[in-house]
Parts: sequence; C-alpha cells; structure tokens
Amino acid sequence: MDKLRRVYRTQGEVILLPGSGRMGLEAALASIVEPGDRVLVVVAGEFGRMIPEIVKRVGGVPVEFRVPPGGRLDESRLEEALERGGFKALAMVHNEPSTGTLYPAEGVGRLARRYGVLYLLGAGSSLGGVDVRVDEWGVDLCISCSHKCLAAPMGLAMVSVGERAWEVMEDRKTPPVTFLNDLYRWRRLWIPRERGGLLEQGLRRVPITLPVHLLYALNEALDIVLEEGLEARFERHRTASRAFVKAVEAMGLEILPDERLSSPTVTAVKVPEGVDDSKLRRRILDYGVLVAGGLSELRGRIFRVGHMAETASERCIRAAVTAIGLALRDMGLKADVGLAVEEVSSVFRS
Amino acid sequence: MDKLRRVYRTQGEVILLPGSGRMGLEAALASIVEPGDRVLVVVAGEFGRMIPEIVKRVGGVPVEFRVPPGGRLDESRLEEALERGGFKALAMVHNEPSTGTLYPAEGVGRLARRYGVLYLLGAGSSLGGVDVRVDEWGVDLCISCSHKCLAAPMGLAMVSVGERAWEVMEDRKTPPVTFLNDLYRWRRLWIPRERGGLLEQGLRRVPITLPVHLLYALNEALDIVLEEGLEARFERHRTASRAFVKAVEAMGLEILPDERLSSPTVTAVKVPEGVDDSKLRRRILDYGVLVAGGLSELRGRIFRVGHMAETASERCIRAAVTAIGLALRDMGLKADVGLAVEEVSSVFRS
Repeated sequence: MDKLRRVYRTQGEVILLPGSGRMGLEAALASIVEPGDRVLVVVAGEFGRMIPEIVKRVGGVPVEFRVPPGGRLDESRLEEALERGGFKALAMVHNEPSTGTLYPAEGVGRLARRYGVLYLLGAGSSLGGVDVRVDEWGVDLCISCSHKCLAAPMGLAMVSVGERAWEVMEDRKTPPVTFLNDLYRWRRLWIPRERGGLLEQGLRRVPITLPVHLLYALNEALDIVLEEGLEARFERHRTASRAFVKAVEAMGLEILPDERLSSPTVTAVKVPEGVDDSKLRRRILDYGVLVAGGLSELRGRIFRVGHMAETASERCIRAAVTAIGLALRDMGLKADVGLAVEEVSSVFRS
Repeated sequence: MDKLRRVYRTQGEVILLPGSGRMGLEAALASIVEPGDRVLVVVAGEFGRMIPEIVKRVGGVPVEFRVPPGGRLDESRLEEALERGGFKALAMVHNEPSTGTLYPAEGVGRLARRYGVLYLLGAGSSLGGVDVRVDEWGVDLCISCSHKCLAAPMGLAMVSVGERAWEVMEDRKTPPVTFLNDLYRWRRLWIPRERGGLLEQGLRRVPITLPVHLLYALNEALDIVLEEGLEARFERHRTASRAFVKAVEAMGLEILPDERLSSPTVTAVKVPEGVDDSKLRRRILDYGVLVAGGLSELRGRIFRVGHMAETASERCIRAAVTAIGLALRDMGLKADVGLAVEEVSSVFRS
C-alpha cells in the first residue's frame, strides 16, 4: 500500500478492487453520487464517454463538456461550465488512450477546488508512465489499473481516496447503489484505525475477495517501478514518445493530437489518405508489431501505438517504427525507414 | 465457454466477470432487479445474509426467509412465503460455507417455477465439487467463482444466464444501477448471433476488460475437472466429506448441521465445551493444517474445514484429522487419533 501511495503521490488511501480501471471508475462514482447529483464530465474520447453512462446508471445527472478528439481542453470554457454551478463533482480522463491525448490534470484540479467540487481523475493509462500528483493537484478520487504503465498482470482496479471524498461518502443521505464496490465499506471494515479506519466489526475484514496472487504480482511490479524511480520512468516515457513521433513524422505521417498534448504512453497516428487501415495494421502485425485501430468516429482514421512500461524503450520503439515503415512501403507509399530509425536513435542519444 | 457450460450443465450462457462470487451475485441481482421489486431470499448463513443487503442497494425490496444455522430448509414454509406472492425472484445460496450446509437446490427450483419467479442460485462453494444442474433444476442465474471447487486462481466470477433471465432483462423499464456489471450488455455486445447475441456494434466487443491470464488458467482448471469427470469428482467430495465427518465424530466431536445436510465441500465442527476456539485453531495450524473459525453468531462455537478440489483426498483428510486430533490432545481433551485415522481409511477403501 505504501508503495502505491508513493506512485500516486498521496498521503490518502489507495483501495484495490478486482477488475479493471472501468470497475474503479464505477466504484468511485457509485460511492459519491446520490440521486440527482450533477457531475460535470470532460468527454474527450471513448473512455471519457463511458463516464456519463456510469453517472446515469448510479443515479446522477451527467453534464458533458465535450472536447474534440485530440483537441485542446479550453480551461476558460470549462470554468464557465463550472460557474453555471450546481455540480457535486468534475470527472476527467487524464490520458485518453482512444486519441493518444494527455490532458492538463493539474489546471483542471485548480478549477475543481476553486468551485468546491470533487475531482475524479481517471489515470488508467497514465499512472506509472506519466506524473500523477494526487495530493498536489487536489485529486479526490484517482482511478487506475494494474496492467498498463505499472506493468502488473491484469485484474486489479485501484482508487485513491482523499479526505474530502471520505467526507462526501460519510455525509450521504442514501446508500450507494452498489454494495461490493461501495468504497466507504473499506473505511468501515479494513483501513487501520491509525489511518482513519472505523473497524466496525472490531477487526480488519476485507470487504471483497481479492485475487491474492495478483497482489503479489502488483507488489513486484511496484518494486520495479520504484527501483527505476518515478522521474526516470516518466522521462523514459517522454523520450520514447518523442522518438516515436519524430520517426513517424519523418516517414510523412501525421499525429492526431495537437503536438503538445500528444500522450507519452500512446500515440495516435493518422492513417494516410486512401489507405485501408485494417490492411495496414495487418501488414504491421506481419512484421511482428501489434497496433490498435481507431474507435467509433475515429475508426479507419487513426491507428494507435502504445509505449508503456517495458515498451517505452529504444528497442521497442525502433521495432515499431521499422514495422510501420515496411508496411507503408508494402502498401505502395514512400517511407524513408532509414531516416525514421535515425530519428529514434538521435532522440534516445540526445 | 463450452467447458463451463458442461460443468454448469446448461445450454444457456455463462458469463465471466473480474471479481469473486459476490461480484457475480451483485451483477446478477442488479441486472434483474428494478426499483421496488420484491426478492425472497433464503438466509441460512453469512453468504445468504449478504443478498438482502445487495438487493436493497440495487433498488429492490428483500424479504428474508430465515433458516437457523446448519438447520433444515422447510420447503412447505417456503412455499407459503411464495404463496403470499408478489416476488420477482427467489435467491438462495446452494452450499453455505459459513455453516457447512448444503441446501436442496432442486426442490427450491421446483417451487420457484411453480410460482413463476426467477431463481438465483449462489453456487460459489458447490460448483465443481457438488452436482449443480442449472437447466434441470430451472436455475435462471447461477453464480460461482474460479477459486473454490474449480481450483482455478482467484479473480473471476461466473454467472450462467438462462432464457427467462434474458427476457426479464430485456423487458426492464429502468436501466440497471450498474453499467459494467449489467449482464445484458454481454448479450448486446459479445454473445455470438447464433447464440442469441445482438452484436449491436456489428462486431463482438468485450464489455469489460478481463484478466486474460486468469482465463487461460481457468481453461486449464476446467480441463482437469472434466478429465476427472463430474460424477467421479462429486463422488470424491462426498467420500472425503464422509470420511472427515466419521473421523471427527470418532474423536468425540459433533458436526453443526443436520447430518444429511452436511456439505460435501466444507464441514463445520462444533468446538467442544470450554475450549477456546482460536487457541485450538492455532494449535491445529501448528500441525500444518489451516482451519477457519465461525462467523458472526457462530464465532467461537464452530471451526470449519474445507475439502474442495485437491484437498478432497485421502491424504489431505488424513492430515487434517491427525492435526485436529493432536491439537485436541494438547489442549487436554481425549481424542483417539488412531481410531479417527482408521475411519478415514475405511471410508476411502469402502
């Protein structure tokens, strides 16, 4: 737990649940939303789009703040939305993997605090690869998962819970619509007294059966993360991302997001005009590299390359770039693979 | 999936979710219960006790049908409760591990069908160790988990869904309070068309991230179960249970449940008068065997010994019996370990 707190940069609690990041998102929302509560949701891609649906299911009223795919989040417009008021919480996905875009979580946190609303941050594809500063940014509930940048096996969701979030849960007038994912039960049954736990049954009881083997694996994964050092790890992801972007640009491709927002953990590349994206991706796979397609309205328009944890390395980036270049050539496009590979080396050596 | 269907003895669907059996229970209840729906719940122990709480959280009205710990379920009284009517569903735990009691799921299923209510059966500690006949018994939703009698690693919940359950989900007037655990989403997004799936997005999409490594492990575990053969496996559990009961009785101990209801997968043994149960359990552990204590009102009054999957074997039963006997002696009680061990052999040889 202490290791998780270090990665989250928080003095608060970090709760583990069986499931993936989405399960953590639903647990966090169900734990704080009461019937009729309004939640402002930044919707900038597929993962953000799931949040209003969850808010509705758990009894709240979602209000969407839409950001175009890969586009900037206009903080002054967001502030206007908050000003219109009446929100209990503001929710955002930090790093939207469907568009390869990283959003300014710190600035949004400032706004949330200024308007006195809870701040939920989905950090599924950022925690452990990009800096996430829960306490400093005023994040009340920060959700992530075991298997992305932390590189532990799939199967665990994690949610940090800060003091303001506990207070909101304590002050609820109606019980949450979930029993098993009610985060407050962890405070009632499991969190030690010296950390604010209530231990209502007199002894610590885990509110839900956790896959113990995954806890051991996560513990190992966190050791690896902390041994590398958070700063070094973030720098490595930034370097890998920059190298990859430079290399694909050298081959004449374009990146979807505004460059300053391009995610350090996943890059969304535009599919060249006239190219069938599924054929392109199959060709890339023939060269041994798996890339993902676009989702919903981006289907066919982009392909996405993850560079998280071990794959944020010179070796993996070079393999990805080479595979993409060869596939482009096979499909009759001009692509200077040599130049692209040189870009990778030069970024990693600089 | 087909292997799971064979173990469940169903032609219906079996859906896997990250989590434990309780998560499956909440998913099943949330998927069928609408605001104000009455659910009759057989409460015969700790696990059954959780169900009314979940029913309330997801918006329903639980009505408890209480059975004393380890006691018989009076089917005619249950029928009277059903007659008073107005229930959408009847929920029961098949094998209550908190009291080591197995309930007559088939008879209860007949009643559920007679009164036209959905039948939810929690089979967390029975499936794979005791016969569970979903289709034959008319079970509409049967919930289990990966890590008990199936002996796969922890981390997966499983729910079988029959035709009547799909219909109820389809006919809902309000959406379920959960998005991620809404079982109907599996029909909308994942189940193949030829099995009644809708594939609304035109292709199969998994509604929730599943820990793939656990699926592989479960697949292996199911191969082991089916290789042994269901009947042989159930017989082995019955034999192990009978041997264990005979042996502890030979040492002067008593079993909590009515003997004909004693569970083939976990035995609840009464702690002898004047003995401190936690000391006894610690002593047993010193001899290398882990046994569990009683829960809630049974705390201090019983200890519980699981004999599921690999541990339902002569070797494990003998080890457990010997450890218990030596611990009893250490605590100043008379216990004929030799006789107990002979009982084990004679049951396994007969």
